[in-house]
Formats: sequence, structure tokens, C-alpha cells
Amino acid sequence: MHKIGALIFPGFELLDLFGPLEMFGLLKDDFSIELVAKAAGPVVSNQQVSAHADWDLANAPAFDILLVPGGSGARRVATDTAQLGWIAARGAEATLTLSVCTGALLLGKAGVLEGRKATTNKAAFNWVADQVPGANWVAQARWVEDGPVLTSSGVSAGMDMSLRVIERLHGPEKAEQVALWAEYTWHRDPDRDPFAQAHGLT
Amino acid sequence: MHKIGALIFPGFELLDLFGPLEMFGLLKDDFSIELVAKAAGPVVSNQQVSAHADWDLANAPAFDILLVPGGSGARRVATDTAQLGWIAARGAEATLTLSVCTGALLLGKAGVLEGRKATTNKAAFNWVADQVPGANWVAQARWVEDGPVLTSSGVSAGMDMSLRVIERLHGPEKAEQVALWAEYTWHRDPDRDPFAQAHGLT
Repeated sequence: MHKIGALIFPGFELLDLFGPLEMFGLLKDDFSIELVAKAAGPVVSNQQVSAHADWDLANAPAFDILLVPGGSGARRVATDTAQLGWIAARGAEATLTLSVCTGALLLGKAGVLEGRKATTNKAAFNWVADQVPGANWVAQARWVEDGPVLTSSGVSAGMDMSLRVIERLHGPEKAEQVALWAEYTWHRDPDRDPFAQAHGLT
Repeated sequence: MHKIGALIFPGFELLDLFGPLEMFGLLKDDFSIELVAKAAGPVVSNQQVSAHADWDLANAPAFDILLVPGGSGARRVATDTAQLGWIAARGAEATLTLSVCTGALLLGKAGVLEGRKATTNKAAFNWVADQVPGANWVAQARWVEDGPVLTSSGVSAGMDMSLRVIERLHGPEKAEQVALWAEYTWHRDPDRDPFAQAHGLT
């Protein structure tokens, strides 16, 4: 059983979080999932509705996989030492650290991306890259793997990255089964990224 | 401003709900979103984590668009007269009524699909169709439109249907803009459904 902990904060992007958790959550025997925030309880998303954090930062248990979504609220988290410190500490303990969209800004500000290849949301790509000069930013990528750190492009790209994580941990057949259950057409080529071009990055 | 109300219940499928709400929620000037459940507060999903219902059934305000997700918990809701009655009443008032996945079972049990074309999750297709004999079930469909009622296939199909709703209400450019923001490859052809074949329905 891989224990997943996902950080949420006011203004997190719904699909950044719940796209990946849909995929992992379909494998109930392989993944447990818990949500963490500055305070336990409801946390409002960028899309108005709220998720419910199971734990506050201090009381969250140990996790094998750390997931950090992005969203309009990431800008505030990027200057919050409590949350950045938590990401740094939990990222150092985790087997895998994942970000979706501008969640990469938070991994970067927490020091997780120093010297690593990474990607992020394409509309915010140059802005994030400027904020985290120590990472090797890859513009044309659905997601990027650098050892234990995987960063995905914007919003829906987190689902493709998560299926890759399932493949990496449990083999391609299991990832394909999850995609079939979710009736999702998995974009399995990490280098296929039409949105980089659409945003003038290539 | 279109007011969206989404029904949630224990065991709702994360992406059935949050895929559509991601798309609508990116248009903050056009859509408001609220979650409704038997009781306000946290409601656990099929993927363990919880969303936070803003309203209970009795106190929920009027909505223009009703969204009903599916999931493992839909089976229990399908025999719950309080929730089925709420769907029937709110569906009659709404301009549009939408379901994702086995949410179609709940629309069907509430009488919303009588004499209408509809589709549902492909793994559960025959089971749902047997439970709701008064609908005209379409196996090969990403989603089906029948006037004010739109039903989508399983899980990720809800995102494609929601982009179609945005197109229907606000034109294709706005729907394409949302798909670009979400870095989502919109499957715009409602008849393109590789999962019907994968489940032996064609």
C-alpha cells in the first residue's frame, strides 16, 4: 500500500488535485489517499467548491507519495514558510514527489527542484521558470520525470502523469486498466504536448 | 450567471464531479457552483477523500443547472426517496440537467429519463439500462443530448460533455478557451466512444 498525501490550500485547482486522485483512488488495494492543509476541515478551491482536509500540517502522518496541485492560490503558498517547509520535509521523506500545474512553483520554492528537470502549466511557464531559476525547465512536455520527482504540465496533464506513476509502480497493464475504468484516453507520450505550441513556447 | 448545483453522496466518483466543475469553474463570470448533499458538511467520495457540501437538500437554493455524478454510492442513492425526489423536483425546475457515469441511474430512477435518449458508464451499461427501461439507451456515445437533459458516459466523459454545455450556452470559442486553460484535449464528437467497443457493447 502506497500512502499518498496531497497538500491543499485556498485557491487550489480542482482537477490538478482530483484528476490524479481519481486514478490512484481506483486502485483501493494499492493506494491510500489523505488531504493535508494548514488547518483540517474545508478548503475552498479555485472553482468555489471545497474539499475537506483530513489533517493539518503538524499532525499529518508519514506519506510515501507527496502530491502538490497548483491553482490561483499557489502564488500565496509560494511565500508561506510553514507550507514550503512542510513540502521540503515531506518531499525529502517521500519515495515520489509529484506536482501538477503551478504546483511546480511550490516544489521549486521548497527547494525540491534544484538541479532537476521539471515542467509546469504552459500559460504560466515563463513566470514559474523565472521564480525557480535552479531547475532545468522543459517547455515541451506533458510531464517530466527526474528520479523521484515528477512534474506535470497544466491541470489535465496530472492525470497522464498519474497513470505513468501507476505504470512505474505496478506495470502497464494496471495503468491501462485504470484508464479503461475511467474511460480516459491516456496520453502516454510525455513529450507530446500540443499546449506548449499553443502558448508560443516552441 | 448560470447557477450550478451538484448532488453529492457517500461514494460519489471524484472525477465525475470535479471534471465538469473544473471546466465550468474556469468561467467564474458565467457559472456559480454549489454542492448539495443529504446533510451539509464533509461527504466521502469513492476515492476516500471528502468534498464539502454547501447545502442540505431542503435548504439548497434554486439552480439553473443540475449535475448528478455517479460512483459506487449511486446504488444506495437509487433507492433513497429523499434524494430521488430532490432530483425530480430540481430537474423539473432546471434549464439543464446533467449526469456523468452512473449518475444516469439516478436521473432514471427519478423519472428524468422517461422517453429520452441517454447513455451511462460502459462497464455498467447493461445493468443501468435494465434498471431504467423507460429510457432509450445509446451504447456508442461519449455523451447524449436530449433537449434539456445531457447524460455522459463514464468518469472522464463528463469533461467532454461539460465543454459541450459551455459551447451550447456561450459558443465554441469559449469552450475551446476553457479546454486550452485546462490543457485538455476535448473530444468534441459525441459519437466517438472507444470504450463502448472495449466493453463489448458494439
